Amino acid sequence: MKLIIDCMGGDNSPGANVEGGLMALKKYPELHLIFSGDESLIKEELKRCGVTEGRFEILHAPDVITGEDKPTDAIRLKRESSMMKGIKLLRESPDIEGIVSTGATGSLVAAATLRIGRIEGVFRPAFCPILPTMNGGIVGVCDSGANVDCQPLQLIQFAIMASAYMEHTFGIENPRVALLNIGTESEKGDDLRKEVYAALSTLEGINFVGNMESRDLLSGKYDVVVCDGFSGNVLIKTTEGTALQLMKKIKKDIYSRTVYKIGALFMKKMFSDMKEFMNYQRYGGSVLLGTEKIIVKGHGASDKVAVAKCIEQAVSMAGSNLNGIIAEKVKA
Amino acid sequence: MKLIIDCMGGDNSPGANVEGGLMALKKYPELHLIFSGDESLIKEELKRCGVTEGRFEILHAPDVITGEDKPTDAIRLKRESSMMKGIKLLRESPDIEGIVSTGATGSLVAAATLRIGRIEGVFRPAFCPILPTMNGGIVGVCDSGANVDCQPLQLIQFAIMASAYMEHTFGIENPRVALLNIGTESEKGDDLRKEVYAALSTLEGINFVGNMESRDLLSGKYDVVVCDGFSGNVLIKTTEGTALQLMKKIKKDIYSRTVYKIGALFMKKMFSDMKEFMNYQRYGGSVLLGTEKIIVKGHGASDKVAVAKCIEQAVSMAGSNLNGIIAEKVKA
Repeated sequence: MKLIIDCMGGDNSPGANVEGGLMALKKYPELHLIFSGDESLIKEELKRCGVTEGRFEILHAPDVITGEDKPTDAIRLKRESSMMKGIKLLRESPDIEGIVSTGATGSLVAAATLRIGRIEGVFRPAFCPILPTMNGGIVGVCDSGANVDCQPLQLIQFAIMASAYMEHTFGIENPRVALLNIGTESEKGDDLRKEVYAALSTLEGINFVGNMESRDLLSGKYDVVVCDGFSGNVLIKTTEGTALQLMKKIKKDIYSRTVYKIGALFMKKMFSDMKEFMNYQRYGGSVLLGTEKIIVKGHGASDKVAVAKCIEQAVSMAGSNLNGIIAEKVKA
Repeated sequence: MKLIIDCMGGDNSPGANVEGGLMALKKYPELHLIFSGDESLIKEELKRCGVTEGRFEILHAPDVITGEDKPTDAIRLKRESSMMKGIKLLRESPDIEGIVSTGATGSLVAAATLRIGRIEGVFRPAFCPILPTMNGGIVGVCDSGANVDCQPLQLIQFAIMASAYMEHTFGIENPRVALLNIGTESEKGDDLRKEVYAALSTLEGINFVGNMESRDLLSGKYDVVVCDGFSGNVLIKTTEGTALQLMKKIKKDIYSRTVYKIGALFMKKMFSDMKEFMNYQRYGGSVLLGTEKIIVKGHGASDKVAVAKCIEQAVSMAGSNLNGIIAEKVKA
């Protein structure tokens, strides 16, 4: 199984990308990686890790795409970048399954859509990040930002693709699919929501459980939440932001009084477990569903463990033939 | 100053509404209240509080509107309800400034829009709840759910109205107004966002500071966040939900080990301060901006302190002649 690792463009690139790749190689004996990026920098990282050879090769790409680059310009002008060279190789190589990147999201979506292409029948690819729920499970949110303007058909396909993803990549049987809305009653929301609600209610093969209010995202009552990319983006980033701000406040409060500092000493492990629990990177990257090859977008701040987790996701998607399943389901 | 208190329809009605009203009467010597609701139930509550007379009267309304009632039906069929009788009296009485309700949101919006009417020039009224920020300040979110489908003009008016509200009711000078978007760059988002961004950038009298990503809502960097009612609803409820779920998790974790329980004993006050800080009810209700009279919607779960806080908001809005200021600004 062959995958490309875009080694540039992340906050901890190329170190985290190379080291995460090596971790994944240890875990999966059938895995073969192509590190895309500046050859000398990648070799330096390999040396740092004490590795000279293994089941990997280097695709030399001296340029880097950043968040500042306009996606359309990045595609046209930064052909020597690690992301674009990786995407080009992916397109030209039937034996390579996908790419993992911690680089610029907009450019990755544009390149994947324009250069790799969609699964036949898929209207628009969509992001599906995974969040931990309070009962120890996970929930997928689709779309989280690839499509800001959505038609009903798109949301219906998001439900189909994300449901297949949760079932076949994470082993969740008959995933409970909900529609993000401003109330739980069937008649809530705008025309888009009403139309999608009606369609999902009668769609076979989807376990549609109705509308979900955003306050219930982490409740564990849902496996998939379907939404347009704008509100999905708000949903994901608000959850992340609120959790981070609260943990920051707790930390600040603890340091404000000695008695709190003493109490916190007893709870050190609890707080560090909590931090780990809330570290969304530990749950893998955001997968772009609906493209012909596997595209996994890791958080820009990914460390080596997060990169390894993203690769694990790609391996699992390839192993379960997720794209073949999505193609079948979308056709039906 | 005269206000109507809708005493029915909340989780703690009529007790919390009556008692909250009495608290406000103590605080504001110029205040006069009309308690709308079942007369015998209200009298019982007054008796419980040891009050027989004061600067209040009772508007007998035996019926109650619940969340189950369809707003259009509620207006037509539940004319004897505390909310509809209150709204009717408000419309007919030039000397009454507004109404405070903890009842059904949809029915309140419908009745306020159809029976009370909009300030001249206002396209659509919008909700503006207040949230606490991490640096001890507050932020207003407008619209949070009254308008699920929005035109650019609406969002521009939300900015004008919410900015006036934060300035004149809360004394925030030159409020920093942000547009909720999926990225901070000016070209981000859908056509609605791009158009509103361009308009707000050149609008005089508004301190527009650009796009805000939802993860920064509580950062304290913004005083007003402008959004369509759908994504605003997601923003507010996700913040509330994430905070609640996290506090629940902390509580559960503490009870899982004796050493954590011991630690928590030292931090008891910190956690209770934190709970109080996150209790959004302490920051008042969600005000419907743009109607000719003052409409304050308290949370359904409001206790007496929350009701008193909602009344305080209405008093402050009336005292600062907010609606007159909004009328001026919208005309300009």
